[in-house]
Amino acid sequence: AGTDGLAVSAVKVPVVRMKIGEVAEATSVAVLPVCRAEGGTVEVEDAPWECGSKGDFGVVEAEKGWKSWVVLPRWEPVAGLNRGGVAVAFKDSKVLPWKASKWNQNEPLLVVTDRGSKEVVADDGFYLVVGGGNGNAEEGLKVEKGSALKESSVKESLGSVLMVVRPPRDDYDDQISDEEWD
Amino acid sequence: AGTDGLAVSAVKVPVVRMKIGEVAEATSVAVLPVCRAEGGTVEVEDAPWECGSKGDFGVVEAEKGWKSWVVLPRWEPVAGLNRGGVAVAFKDSKVLPWKASKWNQNEPLLVVTDRGSKEVVADDGFYLVVGGGNGNAEEGLKVEKGSALKESSVKESLGSVLMVVRPPRDDYDDQISDEEWD
Repeated sequence: AGTDGLAVSAVKVPVVRMKIGEVAEATSVAVLPVCRAEGGTVEVEDAPWECGSKGDFGVVEAEKGWKSWVVLPRWEPVAGLNRGGVAVAFKDSKVLPWKASKWNQNEPLLVVTDRGSKEVVADDGFYLVVGGGNGNAEEGLKVEKGSALKESSVKESLGSVLMVVRPPRDDYDDQISDEEWD
Repeated sequence: AGTDGLAVSAVKVPVVRMKIGEVAEATSVAVLPVCRAEGGTVEVEDAPWECGSKGDFGVVEAEKGWKSWVVLPRWEPVAGLNRGGVAVAFKDSKVLPWKASKWNQNEPLLVVTDRGSKEVVADDGFYLVVGGGNGNAEEGLKVEKGSALKESSVKESLGSVLMVVRPPRDDYDDQISDEEWD
């Protein structure tokens, strides 16, 4: 982050002009409301829909107040997502239908979901659903593959999963191959 | 923004591991609630105080819901600001007590203010105050220099101004010298 334009000496207020390339540039970040997975369906459906950024400073103006927000790089899957996006915060990766071998089950995840695409259409797509069948009395959310949902005749989800964000780590062996998915 | 870890072919959900240096890294951005200057004192005081980011993904958790947020690079003046910060959106720069010559008066501004420092202490500091004396019946906010406030025996402000953010522009002649301030 540059501080070009920083006023000097006697004047104590820095005046900074945003530059192309600064993270605050409207096109370089995506801001999404965050739900806790424990909050279940209610919280996912309650989160604001409008999350597009506007104007010179990329101010996000939601249609309702919300406490919890996350800033993501404007990765391609979320780049055009101005409505309906939500980041669901899971405490571990057990909720994902992929093979555990190479994954740290204790790793928290953000599952970025498009609530505007609820219909289960793609066999190889992934969807956010209410997970009831894991011997847990508590309603929880999980991610399920389209083909599995279709086998159970589930036609509607809470939204389609656009991407899964894992926390930062120092090494980079995070290329996920097809074989790691169930 | 990198998409390292992007899953390929049949799997439609990219899995991205955040990297050090990505904008979403907790230490690289600051997220602040935004008030409209037209909203006056009420809106400034109503905005949430907690705006620190937490956990692996830098999720911002405010103590109350708020509609409007801005993401700024973690410039030094806002780097440690986890409580009390607010960005006040002004439609033009007339609210600032500096000389107009080199400034575009129609330029919108964000005035980043620390509501935790209301006391007018520094002569050469700048403070967010209610601006009544500009022939305008409407209550509005403006920025005033500490020395001017002291002359009027004003001891408390809405907060001290940490920085002023100007919108992006293509050229970079934005170094503000002391002489441009009144």
